[in-house]
Amino acid sequence: MHTRTYLTVRYAETDRMGIAHHSNYPIWYEAGRTDYIKSFGISYSDIENAGILFPVTNLSCHFERPAQYEDNIVVRTWAIELKAAHIQFTYTVKKINEDGSQTELGYGTTEHGILDSKTFRPVSLKKRMPELYEKIKATF
Amino acid sequence: MHTRTYLTVRYAETDRMGIAHHSNYPIWYEAGRTDYIKSFGISYSDIENAGILFPVTNLSCHFERPAQYEDNIVVRTWAIELKAAHIQFTYTVKKINEDGSQTELGYGTTEHGILDSKTFRPVSLKKRMPELYEKIKATF
Amino acid sequence: MHTRTYLTVRYAETDRMGIAHHSNYPIWYEAGRTDYIKSFGISYSDIENAGILFPVTNLSCHFERPAQYEDNIVVRTWAIELKAAHIQFTYTVKKINEDGSQTELGYGTTEHGILDSKTFRPVSLKKRMPELYEKIKATF
Amino acid sequence: MHTRTYLTVRYAETDRMGIAHHSNYPIWYEAGRTDYIKSFGISYSDIENAGILFPVTNLSCHFERPAQYEDNIVVRTWAIELKAAHIQFTYTVKKINEDGSQTELGYGTTEHGILDSKTFRPVSLKKRMPELYEKIKATF
Repeated sequence: MHTRTYLTVRYAETDRMGIAHHSNYPIWYEAGRTDYIKSFGISYSDIENAGILFPVTNLSCHFERPAQYEDNIVVRTWAIELKAAHIQFTYTVKKINEDGSQTELGYGTTEHGILDSKTFRPVSLKKRMPELYEKIKATF
Repeated sequence: MHTRTYLTVRYAETDRMGIAHHSNYPIWYEAGRTDYIKSFGISYSDIENAGILFPVTNLSCHFERPAQYEDNIVVRTWAIELKAAHIQFTYTVKKINEDGSQTELGYGTTEHGILDSKTFRPVSLKKRMPELYEKIKATF
Repeated sequence: MHTRTYLTVRYAETDRMGIAHHSNYPIWYEAGRTDYIKSFGISYSDIENAGILFPVTNLSCHFERPAQYEDNIVVRTWAIELKAAHIQFTYTVKKINEDGSQTELGYGTTEHGILDSKTFRPVSLKKRMPELYEKIKATF
Repeated sequence: MHTRTYLTVRYAETDRMGIAHHSNYPIWYEAGRTDYIKSFGISYSDIENAGILFPVTNLSCHFERPAQYEDNIVVRTWAIELKAAHIQFTYTVKKINEDGSQTELGYGTTEHGILDSKTFRPVSLKKRMPELYEKIKATF
């Protein structure tokens, strides 16, 4: 189970090498995460409004081929691990070519703590948001 | 009375035209504002912690010459207007050449409301932070 | 004649005030410009590949209301002036509410030189790209 | 042998969680890399002008503690591997506290191909820039 997020490379995202700067990929992953969470019928804004944060603790990106201005990109997102106060996501980033075929540009992972937004201490998603917890668990 | 903020153009700030993307200038102005406020013995963090926000209501930028990766830049910042719940800043952006001379790259202005961070309603800086208000007023 | 560009506010675009940082609006305008140019059957990439650049010489933004994470945004873009080596665009930025109504967040303009990408000297769009020139002129 | 790069967290770098967004760390690493290369008496601009690019192929970041607006940050950078057409860097990011002590915020690595800027094919840094190659090698 995964979601697909579509975006177009912005001019401001390019650098003087003529390609999308690598610092944009974590931002694209995050757009993917936003859509992934939404697919469970809750928004990440709702999660934060309920007093829970998912700060990133680890990030890894592998870059296979560059993306360029105006390229149409699809980010595929899915969760690969969910523990009490820890969640991990994987992403693939592909370019959609004019003929509809796709070229893999790279992939990455993010690991997140699950924290209370007031105390910044770990909280159990299972206890605080059991429905969301079970829905994500069911995707494994 | 103005402050000078020094920065080096980052690779990620360039675009495929090979120059610093224009969206970075408001960020550089903001770095200038941070230093300008600090010159009065208070940080902008302190102002926000005291429950006051300075959201931007108007921004204008004029670009004369481009900046490039690794260019050494100086942003000069000063306030040009301060009313009860409104403040306006001006900025110049110059490149510092290797021989120490400077080349003007452009200039800009920002206008800000002065709001209570809880109600998002205008507040009087004169009443809430009279000392800072008088110090800025004294620069005109 | 104008184009509409749809985007969702990204988490990375927010700041500690909880709203989309004002430096994102020029980037959103640029996404609008990309779609506007495309509506004439040519991409801005094609224009650059033909050796022509549209660097920004002036930028102005007015901010009426803030945008927040996950807000659905529509940017409306149109050209308001086209001379030999100069083009000007206007933008409105609106939030699309859940009931489908729209709330105006602000508006802005950008002015651009039209330059040869090798010499960085002004060029006549009318001479270099007469078809595009006439198509834009026809919108006034 | 390593270099130290000093920066102050910008307002635009914060997100609605109130901390520096994780996508800024690769940009800070890059500022560190810029200074590291410069310490060998050549700028990264010079390397690119000589027709060589160092595109990122892998990025990893570990986040231990968050950085906040106006925090003074020091990025320590050093190379840990150099092969013919491949180079790898490590970074630590620390906050400089008011008493001068430092708090570790996290660390990361980047791996880069070494490519010809025209053909985008791997090139040997040892052959193309033997002096720089030997200087970096000498740090291991």
